[in-house]
Amino acid sequence: MVWPNEDYLKLPGSYLFSTVARKQREFSAAHPEAKIIRLSIGDVTQPLAPAIIEALHKAVDEMASAETFKGYAPDLGYEFLRNVVSEKDYKARGCDIAPDEIFISDGAKGDCGNIQEIFARDCKVAVCDPVYPVYVDTNVMAGRTGTYDEKTGTWSDVIYMPCTAENGFAPELPKTVPDLIYLCFPNNPTGATITKDQLQVWVDYANKEGAVIIYDAAYEAYISEENVPHSIYECEGARECAIEIHSFSKNAGFTGVRLGYTVIPKDLKAGNVALHALWARRHGTKYNGAPYIIQKAGEAVYTPEGQAQLKEQVAYYMKNAQTIREGLAAAGYTVSGGVNAPYIWLRTPKDMTSWEFFDHLLEKANVVGTPGSGFGPSGEHYFRLTAFGSCENTVEAIERIKKM
Amino acid sequence: MVWPNEDYLKLPGSYLFSTVARKQREFSAAHPEAKIIRLSIGDVTQPLAPAIIEALHKAVDEMASAETFKGYAPDLGYEFLRNVVSEKDYKARGCDIAPDEIFISDGAKGDCGNIQEIFARDCKVAVCDPVYPVYVDTNVMAGRTGTYDEKTGTWSDVIYMPCTAENGFAPELPKTVPDLIYLCFPNNPTGATITKDQLQVWVDYANKEGAVIIYDAAYEAYISEENVPHSIYECEGARECAIEIHSFSKNAGFTGVRLGYTVIPKDLKAGNVALHALWARRHGTKYNGAPYIIQKAGEAVYTPEGQAQLKEQVAYYMKNAQTIREGLAAAGYTVSGGVNAPYIWLRTPKDMTSWEFFDHLLEKANVVGTPGSGFGPSGEHYFRLTAFGSCENTVEAIERIKKM
Repeated sequence: MVWPNEDYLKLPGSYLFSTVARKQREFSAAHPEAKIIRLSIGDVTQPLAPAIIEALHKAVDEMASAETFKGYAPDLGYEFLRNVVSEKDYKARGCDIAPDEIFISDGAKGDCGNIQEIFARDCKVAVCDPVYPVYVDTNVMAGRTGTYDEKTGTWSDVIYMPCTAENGFAPELPKTVPDLIYLCFPNNPTGATITKDQLQVWVDYANKEGAVIIYDAAYEAYISEENVPHSIYECEGARECAIEIHSFSKNAGFTGVRLGYTVIPKDLKAGNVALHALWARRHGTKYNGAPYIIQKAGEAVYTPEGQAQLKEQVAYYMKNAQTIREGLAAAGYTVSGGVNAPYIWLRTPKDMTSWEFFDHLLEKANVVGTPGSGFGPSGEHYFRLTAFGSCENTVEAIERIKKM
Repeated sequence: MVWPNEDYLKLPGSYLFSTVARKQREFSAAHPEAKIIRLSIGDVTQPLAPAIIEALHKAVDEMASAETFKGYAPDLGYEFLRNVVSEKDYKARGCDIAPDEIFISDGAKGDCGNIQEIFARDCKVAVCDPVYPVYVDTNVMAGRTGTYDEKTGTWSDVIYMPCTAENGFAPELPKTVPDLIYLCFPNNPTGATITKDQLQVWVDYANKEGAVIIYDAAYEAYISEENVPHSIYECEGARECAIEIHSFSKNAGFTGVRLGYTVIPKDLKAGNVALHALWARRHGTKYNGAPYIIQKAGEAVYTPEGQAQLKEQVAYYMKNAQTIREGLAAAGYTVSGGVNAPYIWLRTPKDMTSWEFFDHLLEKANVVGTPGSGFGPSGEHYFRLTAFGSCENTVEAIERIKKM
């Protein structure tokens, strides 16, 4: 008789964003006149840039004639895209990443979730706290995380690295040595980042301990300050210890278009096994490539027109980040993030819990944000707002918060 | 120190289609004048139908303006697509499948590979022999298949159900009771199918034994005969024991467009756990939805224009199937398949092994096909040709084979 995967059953029932959505729905039903502004989830609102629209139309036309029609894509992705990624995202920054070390996929979320599969089932995972839930949940589903403690909201076999105001939201090296270390900078949810020197410490540590760093660089395009690394491969020795995951969702507005890539250098090993070969095997067996027309849209991201248009788009969102950050600071809140990231992380006032502040903000300002505690225990008493709304809504939301 | 997933390392090195491609490459290099015709892999060659091209352009335009731009898709897929699938693929055939039992994905291969994840790690898997390699390989990667025997090409913990001329390429109920049963009809690679009564036997068996059937219906559009089920849900009791996986690759030429769906009825349980909830959790945690523009293309498949155009496209390929089937029979080959499927399965002449016949065909006729033994031990002495080439190439390939 067939049984389910018991590890799936360990996952706590409700997902952060579902609870946020339900509370918003209930409030709307009770107050149909309220004009709610959502500064909660990480979805973009600006349309695709003209250069991308043009590339999509052109690729669609190619699919209409037998001479230019494209069937199954190459397993790793089309060369035209892997070449330009290698050139613009790596070689231009002095990072030695070859096109055949780049695996094109349908987005960073899938890659973040699937990457753990190529590692041993008993490997020890370390995550920042607070953290993007996908890293932990997918390890729960793989049976790596031990038992869940409802009270603390933590798993017995996960190493949590607190990121709080005390350490500038930068994790410290853990006391127990992990095998797999998830790092995301610029960070979701805190919006914080670390310097190249700080990241070098992690690379050295991983190489010393034989650990692998999974570096989520989804928000790289929002970096505005010098000395903040755009890629972990800017650090010495990262080719021997790091996998890097990229998204097109936030730099090019592809949340509904779906494109991403993962870098696995050929030097990277677990035991004496090259992880590149394992990930290639996973791609070949469980995946059939990103759509041709979407990969052509990805190529357009790197054209001079695409780059210029997307720079404007990122600037639009970062103007919102500034509006939120400065507005909240003026209203007396303690805020961080929003300088190199589209996320603003604020300390709740009067020692409210994250969910108390969520209700307070929804009721008094009709603004929806995300409770920091939903990202992990160290997120308690914090709250996340995102810069992905429209400019008008963002300005209005902050005006309302100021009047609370 | 980090270690790799040891189960990945158990997979035999070379993949069937890679070996086929390598042999073809080597032959081309040695005989640059030879005009090779590939009747080997399952990729389509006809361009997308006009109704689909139109839908793609329209959806691209929607992404160009803030008012109609679409970000993250709903986890299960857009309602417009789930509704029409439920209506046209199920209710129209008398099958009771609701829109919220349909999970839209980026293709059948991924779903076929990932679905095993929601089941217990020690569940016992049964597959047809020969078989589409993805079912077995993904269970190897999950650690379910025991040890590999190089000599027989089989795994110690997999239940193989031989499909040969003796049983009309229809599997018999296995002697050991499995927990998970993979069935694919019309079949890849044999092109055979089974009647509704035969499939009902499997549904009854699964319900009696508490097993789950994973029914791969990727080639459903090629069914031309009466009494061949288009869906397993045409059988009584299938809602309690079956998952069905669909592709848009072969009925609509979406191999490079990427769209599919999986049906998990809410009545389907493993132990007392609803599998629908588990798959929903997997979708929500490891996947971010199929692209909006691709889902709009999927919707166009079901419009009257789309249906008419795709009927012609399927007829085009089935004319090729007829050319191959009748041509080979006239040349004295023993052939099956090609009536309800785009695959023709032939017995190798003079008791050649599958790979001997591969070399023979490549050398004498410059035609590439797929050795049956690559799909499993019972495929030995068989060979697969596909109907997805152009009409001209198919006719020429058969002329050449006749002259061998």
